[in-house]
Amino acid sequence: MTMSVNRRALWLVEALLAHAQERRVTLHLIEGGGRYIDCGIAARGGLLAGLELARVCLGDLAAVCIVPGEFAGRAVPLVQVVTDHPVQACLASQYAGWGIQEGKYFAMGSGPMRAVRGKEPVYDAIGCREREPAVVGVLEARKAPPPAVFAQVAGECGVEQAGVTLLAAPTASLAGGVQVVARSVETALHKLHALDFPMGRIQSAFGTAPLPPVARDDISAIGRTNDAVLYGGRVILQVTGDDASLEEIGPKVPSSSSKDHGEPFAAIFARYKNDFYAVDPHLFSPAEVVFQNLDTGRTHAFGRVEPEVLAGSFWS
Amino acid sequence: MTMSVNRRALWLVEALLAHAQERRVTLHLIEGGGRYIDCGIAARGGLLAGLELARVCLGDLAAVCIVPGEFAGRAVPLVQVVTDHPVQACLASQYAGWGIQEGKYFAMGSGPMRAVRGKEPVYDAIGCREREPAVVGVLEARKAPPPAVFAQVAGECGVEQAGVTLLAAPTASLAGGVQVVARSVETALHKLHALDFPMGRIQSAFGTAPLPPVARDDISAIGRTNDAVLYGGRVILQVTGDDASLEEIGPKVPSSSSKDHGEPFAAIFARYKNDFYAVDPHLFSPAEVVFQNLDTGRTHAFGRVEPEVLAGSFWS
Amino acid sequence: MTMSVNRRALWLVEALLAHAQERRVTLHLIEGGGRYIDCGIAARGGLLAGLELARVCLGDLAAVCIVPGEFAGRAVPLVQVVTDHPVQACLASQYAGWGIQEGKYFAMGSGPMRAVRGKEPVYDAIGCREREPAVVGVLEARKAPPPAVFAQVAGECGVEQAGVTLLAAPTASLAGGVQVVARSVETALHKLHALDFPMGRIQSAFGTAPLPPVARDDISAIGRTNDAVLYGGRVILQVTGDDASLEEIGPKVPSSSSKDHGEPFAAIFARYKNDFYAVDPHLFSPAEVVFQNLDTGRTHAFGRVEPEVLAGSFWS
Repeated sequence: MTMSVNRRALWLVEALLAHAQERRVTLHLIEGGGRYIDCGIAARGGLLAGLELARVCLGDLAAVCIVPGEFAGRAVPLVQVVTDHPVQACLASQYAGWGIQEGKYFAMGSGPMRAVRGKEPVYDAIGCREREPAVVGVLEARKAPPPAVFAQVAGECGVEQAGVTLLAAPTASLAGGVQVVARSVETALHKLHALDFPMGRIQSAFGTAPLPPVARDDISAIGRTNDAVLYGGRVILQVTGDDASLEEIGPKVPSSSSKDHGEPFAAIFARYKNDFYAVDPHLFSPAEVVFQNLDTGRTHAFGRVEPEVLAGSFWS
Repeated sequence: MTMSVNRRALWLVEALLAHAQERRVTLHLIEGGGRYIDCGIAARGGLLAGLELARVCLGDLAAVCIVPGEFAGRAVPLVQVVTDHPVQACLASQYAGWGIQEGKYFAMGSGPMRAVRGKEPVYDAIGCREREPAVVGVLEARKAPPPAVFAQVAGECGVEQAGVTLLAAPTASLAGGVQVVARSVETALHKLHALDFPMGRIQSAFGTAPLPPVARDDISAIGRTNDAVLYGGRVILQVTGDDASLEEIGPKVPSSSSKDHGEPFAAIFARYKNDFYAVDPHLFSPAEVVFQNLDTGRTHAFGRVEPEVLAGSFWS
Repeated sequence: MTMSVNRRALWLVEALLAHAQERRVTLHLIEGGGRYIDCGIAARGGLLAGLELARVCLGDLAAVCIVPGEFAGRAVPLVQVVTDHPVQACLASQYAGWGIQEGKYFAMGSGPMRAVRGKEPVYDAIGCREREPAVVGVLEARKAPPPAVFAQVAGECGVEQAGVTLLAAPTASLAGGVQVVARSVETALHKLHALDFPMGRIQSAFGTAPLPPVARDDISAIGRTNDAVLYGGRVILQVTGDDASLEEIGPKVPSSSSKDHGEPFAAIFARYKNDFYAVDPHLFSPAEVVFQNLDTGRTHAFGRVEPEVLAGSFWS
């Protein structure tokens, strides 16, 4: 079985298409080449389409499932991620690092295609660049990508447009919500990378985050899905190396390390007049981050889940 | 992949038969045509046979698994159901709406075959009728169905008797218990249908219910499996439409809306001298029902689990 | 599908090898015949390799998965086992009953190969001996098995050396940890067997145990993985027969029945100067053991999890 996240994701895509009606997704062939799979824009999508979307986004290098959870006395499903390739799965593939702009169209791009494009600086640190004739990407978007987006992706990745497969779902959709809260481990890794933690030390990971109710619009959904990770995300990282560096970096990792921590994300966002870049970037990480040192056997735990903030966010 | 619950279930049946010994089920060919799969009558069956039975019953349109749970300080497994086709899976297929009487033989019939028979009024509301040459049904029964039952099912469904596959397990069996408590979502939907809630509003669903210990006889098992849903079932429904109607109907949905709520089902049943039809029909629904409105983003939660009633029921 | 645990495990092994890079395991062909799969010695292995190792060890007669758990306010994954063949899966296959000594090399041997060797007295009680041309075994070991070990296993099992497949991981490794704490049910069964409980009464089982952080060395890892079961293991056994015998034997089953119960295993071990055989054998069983009597419907529960002992063990 290949370790190329694009080739792995393509297998998942074929399986998804074989179950398209069951997953309530639709396939659209693009003029000029390429395939678009609607997982929640005009199509209804669903919880299970969301799991598939999350797996595609992770390049099929993580196990993703829905399990029961509870907070504030109410049943709340959790999205669980287990991976033995956290850096490749989450940073090289899943991270939403490609803002795709094409005329008036904009979408956050994530998934395996980023590793073929390979332009983001993160790849200099982690490697994992790929050269593949066919690429798979995931768009968090409200609108279907126009053909020009396929041409752009093809151009940036150096592939034929016919080799581009894009899946899309809005934040405020069932599938979109699942794929976003499947980012508990990714968020921890991205924060660690920003803090210059050597990515090569991270061997395996286990993460969960509660699945929020779909919000009435995408701005509200961004609030809830962020809260799911910031106040409900729990991540365990199996790492190598020394303990002193973990003790030093640890307190900076969970979302509680941020001065903006404590309020629902929507409120923070509004306070900064919806300027995403004004929000403290240190806020974006799981509520609880636990390092298990494979070399020393020591555990270093930081942060706490905040059920009351979650209740306020999810059920308001 | 077909959306016919009968064709989907047939695939599952073939897979189950390929693992018959492992699942501790036995295949019996019926004189005159048809197949009977014993999942807990003379065969022992088991927990994993129960999961397969539940999936068959849901027409393979739901993911079903066993996960850990706890109440009153004791480990209790939960049966979890996730579906993006709750109406077709639960009402058109899983609901035990066909009381099969044949001479002295009686069994509650559920599963995909009901959609081909299509006589129950519910199909006028939900559609989902099917025309298939082969049908699959599930019987909650203490005795193996005689050949005449296969003839009857064939006749009612308009298929050859050779095209009838029936799986059976008693309520008081491992597999029977799992398949019954996999009905958390179904119970909520049936109650909503009885309350005239438009089924087309229900898009996806997530449900859990604790798996009770197998009881000493079927009457006691009916008590415990009902209690599992009535006092331990938790269901989240993703719906469309307005909030006012959810606020209005919501309080009537969980089992606590019934005047009979509060006692173990066996005690209620005994109080009504084992007359099932004397029990308040509003009792039959999950302990906790949460509506997540996909259109407005609002959550409406009703009811509560009752661990003490469960403890009294399961461990008495 | 065959019920031979060796043939079933061979299928799993082929699937594992098809995903070797993804699972971070390596295949080594042995001079003179045989295959060695490194799951955590020189290879890194991982959580998912651990699940596969556990399934191989259980002869593919149990479902094994990782699910979320919590104790002392921290997220701790649980390893869950469900089986309808507990005696064959756990005692005939999974139990680490074969101490393999070859010159200076020593490893605890477990898995399907034991059933072909068939020398342990337990097989006289449970049957389940197999005659197969190819055998699969699991070694809990710090060092790769030398060719002489393959020759020995072949000789003891009466197979060609080319028919021997051995998988290995140290206790202090990701995969090793998962496969050891997948022994919650096995530990209960072994204790019951030692107490002369008739194994034929045990029909199905459900068990969980928390996954400890990998320890710094194998001695410490033996401490933590034992604690995971002794103080965190929860097992439900579905059994047949009378209740009186369950009430009588029950209090002797959980680890709390031992005079050594209460301290982390490492401390007990040190107290006995690391003499394994000096430790009270009654200590080795799950924290909580629940009997569900399939014949009478009664539940008999014994023991309790001890989160504080676990916290002391896992996070010290």
